[in-house]
Amino acid sequence: MEIFYSANIDGCTVVLPKEESEHCVRVLRHRAGDVVMVCPGDGCMYRSQIVVPDPKGTVLQVLSVERGMGLHDYFLHLAVAPPKNIDRFEWFLEKATEMGIDRVTPLLCEHSERKVIKNEREDKVILSAAKQSLKSVLPCLDEMTPFPDFIAAAGAFEGMKFIAYCDHELVNSAGEAVARIDINEALRRAQCASSSGDRLFSALFLIGPEGDFSMKEILMAADAGFLPVSLGEARLRTETAALLVTAAANLMR
Amino acid sequence: MEIFYSANIDGCTVVLPKEESEHCVRVLRHRAGDVVMVCPGDGCMYRSQIVVPDPKGTVLQVLSVERGMGLHDYFLHLAVAPPKNIDRFEWFLEKATEMGIDRVTPLLCEHSERKVIKNEREDKVILSAAKQSLKSVLPCLDEMTPFPDFIAAAGAFEGMKFIAYCDHELVNSAGEAVARIDINEALRRAQCASSSGDRLFSALFLIGPEGDFSMKEILMAADAGFLPVSLGEARLRTETAALLVTAAANLMR
Repeated sequence: MEIFYSANIDGCTVVLPKEESEHCVRVLRHRAGDVVMVCPGDGCMYRSQIVVPDPKGTVLQVLSVERGMGLHDYFLHLAVAPPKNIDRFEWFLEKATEMGIDRVTPLLCEHSERKVIKNEREDKVILSAAKQSLKSVLPCLDEMTPFPDFIAAAGAFEGMKFIAYCDHELVNSAGEAVARIDINEALRRAQCASSSGDRLFSALFLIGPEGDFSMKEILMAADAGFLPVSLGEARLRTETAALLVTAAANLMR
Repeated sequence: MEIFYSANIDGCTVVLPKEESEHCVRVLRHRAGDVVMVCPGDGCMYRSQIVVPDPKGTVLQVLSVERGMGLHDYFLHLAVAPPKNIDRFEWFLEKATEMGIDRVTPLLCEHSERKVIKNEREDKVILSAAKQSLKSVLPCLDEMTPFPDFIAAAGAFEGMKFIAYCDHELVNSAGEAVARIDINEALRRAQCASSSGDRLFSALFLIGPEGDFSMKEILMAADAGFLPVSLGEARLRTETAALLVTAAANLMR
């Protein structure tokens, strides 16, 4: 099954954007009369027939609508400090899209080596992965956000919030060490806390850069209600840690 | 902490192979007197001091031995049909090494698009990931193995065996559909079946190529005692499926 993305759907008529039209007509050599799926990324898939196979703007007629394809039953938001090597971040975006993620915020941390990302390029990675894995909703990729700004805005998040870090030991106001909870336990708590009948859980995780979060950042997150979480004993790269969290969410059933 | 691999350890003296020596002396500019870790891949780490910093064969003296670094408490063997794009297989090898895997067999299936892999190149990917994630044991990568040969040899595997596939429906001799068990349930069964006090479980999973296993292959595996397993609703690429299984094993605690 081939899927093309287009937000240009007006009643029974769809027009594909230039890049999707070229892929449809030039690369895959579709002709008038061929039936393909068109998805605007809002949870619907439109089974549509090509009327005008134009590489600049292919026009299709909608035959039927299917809702909810490729959805998952949780809401997962990851705020990740992208690694220096952007391939590693793109690989994470692709795999997380396949496994099921809702929102990704690239995080600018004190120890971040990468300070800029090109959202246009990363959006293409997500689009391509979503098409390949038949997702009718695209994960949302935010702009690079400084850590303090993200924490300030995260108060509005409806769900449980976690911060994953490695080498630090957090101490509470009474001077006692704060134990990190295991990722499985974190998701179970998010599941118990979920008030929505539609969703298994809503969870937000912070994943730090190569040099980990700074103690200042961990304290800032803890003050804002983020629970410290451990991903286990293995030393994982940033993108592997982020993917392990995504896999853990996928595996909660 | 920096780790170098060498199997050339004789009592108290270590010699690094050429490539590791170059990395140690030329790239990282280590000198006589510097202390690094040396690992032969057998579960031990040797804290060692550089005596002769030679890019062709650096000589070190062992100061102390540490056992069991970076080990996991399960045995996971994945037989995976490598995808056409070898980068995708290398990503999997790197990430699986970080998360924890013991053995990988590249599988040659009926629908395989890739029929050859270069083990020397893939071994380097594994070595590099193991060094980065501080593993004292290297996962073993087998040669490409035809599916029937692998199934014939798998009788010797001490643990539970599973086959993951997507679109087929398996029917037993009574004509009833055989339900696939979920990956979480599969690992729980492997855990229950584990007779070894040292290991949480031993499990072997077959992961098919882009075009899935053939019905013939699924039947052959089922006859040999492989249980059909499902990785969930999401449509995953081969390497993503393999990585999800590795993550599920990592997350069993």
